[in-house]
Amino acid sequence: MTIAMPDLAAFFDELADAAASAIMPHFRAGLTVENKLSAGFDPVTAADREGESAIRRIIHSRFPGHGILGEEHGDHQLDADNVWVLDPIDGTRAFIAGLPTWGTLIGLCQGGSPSHGMMVQPYVGERFYGDGKSAFLATRSGKSSISTRACARLEDALMCTTDPYLFTPEERPVYERIERSARNTRYGTDCYGYAMLAAGHVDLVIESGLNAYDIVALIPIVEGAGGAVTTWTGGSAKDGGRIVASGDKRLHEAVLAQLSQV
Amino acid sequence: MTIAMPDLAAFFDELADAAASAIMPHFRAGLTVENKLSAGFDPVTAADREGESAIRRIIHSRFPGHGILGEEHGDHQLDADNVWVLDPIDGTRAFIAGLPTWGTLIGLCQGGSPSHGMMVQPYVGERFYGDGKSAFLATRSGKSSISTRACARLEDALMCTTDPYLFTPEERPVYERIERSARNTRYGTDCYGYAMLAAGHVDLVIESGLNAYDIVALIPIVEGAGGAVTTWTGGSAKDGGRIVASGDKRLHEAVLAQLSQV
Repeated sequence: MTIAMPDLAAFFDELADAAASAIMPHFRAGLTVENKLSAGFDPVTAADREGESAIRRIIHSRFPGHGILGEEHGDHQLDADNVWVLDPIDGTRAFIAGLPTWGTLIGLCQGGSPSHGMMVQPYVGERFYGDGKSAFLATRSGKSSISTRACARLEDALMCTTDPYLFTPEERPVYERIERSARNTRYGTDCYGYAMLAAGHVDLVIESGLNAYDIVALIPIVEGAGGAVTTWTGGSAKDGGRIVASGDKRLHEAVLAQLSQV
Repeated sequence: MTIAMPDLAAFFDELADAAASAIMPHFRAGLTVENKLSAGFDPVTAADREGESAIRRIIHSRFPGHGILGEEHGDHQLDADNVWVLDPIDGTRAFIAGLPTWGTLIGLCQGGSPSHGMMVQPYVGERFYGDGKSAFLATRSGKSSISTRACARLEDALMCTTDPYLFTPEERPVYERIERSARNTRYGTDCYGYAMLAAGHVDLVIESGLNAYDIVALIPIVEGAGGAVTTWTGGSAKDGGRIVASGDKRLHEAVLAQLSQV
């Protein structure tokens, strides 16, 4: 079953609403660390589980034939033509710290390829959506199309990564050489880095150790905004691993030439 | 001249409104890097200057006898009883990257001591305010008092710092020893780390190389929420430098014991 693009965007909104309702009561919930530890209670785990359950419930009821790959509740019918790929809270450390830079990632693969994706930041009130051909940002003040910006040279690039210490000893020298060449680097970005790349505010995101559910939803957004997102050797990003995203394809080629040496 | 606390909070709001009106047109303004470089135009500098000018204009007109220390436009009557300390955009790298974790810092020193402060995040719609005795957070959905959380042990602490590479070779080993002991560390936080500490979501912020305008506004917020903020040797934080903030004074003592060895 294929649903047309406007309907699909509305369905993503329905999923985003359900996830936000489940997750937001846990954001900045305000228990002390000591309470959390003594009670064995982890608010981000609860929010993750309830957020994913809320999304799954709607997908199961509306599209029982679709598959689901989720961070929290595992795999379901991954051989289906349509497979949803879910990460209810990407950026758990930001979430725990009360920072508004985590996001709910909802991706759809059709015929094995990421086709549609949404990144939702319910506290700020932002939804980034893409279908590989176009992308938009919906905020409290309206909806507008987004696109990556021109930046051909690494020396001019504003780069993001979640944590420079996440790279392996093998990856690190290559990453650090790129970071030294870039104009500026921002840490702690998680999915928000890709969203800002799609919206034309940063030029490059380099990460490693990603899972499929960390990146599938972001691929149609970045590509829809005119950017490129691949593995470090230029392959499909859909299975995660070592990932690089660029707003400008000239920059992507230049950076791949270095990254592919790992 | 002394104005009473409720009036003063309203005056801070007036300054925050003026700063936001000047700054927000430059946030995510969407020029390409290449345009910026070729035109010699730096949106964060423009936003910084215009934001500070907007605040200064109101202070000059309402309190001509007050002093002002600002990042962009220098010093004015610093020997006055009331001195305003301003950083229109703390977190310029977040601002440039489109991330909503920068803030406008408005501090007031009375008789040489930080007495009142506000951290404003206009895109998210948050204002953190403190007077050293109490603190609150105003959001789009209302205003509520905030307080730090209990966390006595470094091993349980969630820590923030803006950039682990900002520490000097002398400072770094001590910082890294603390980071290794902490439960978790979040980078890229700027003023938002102190705000999250005041609101009880993180336990510890450690930084160095701060200017007075980076920290003065945050002191009455952190202290008003029940936390401690000092130099690494336990002195007043009001002149910046090496700064540590803790939500729990037991944690503060424990961390100072290590930091004061630098």
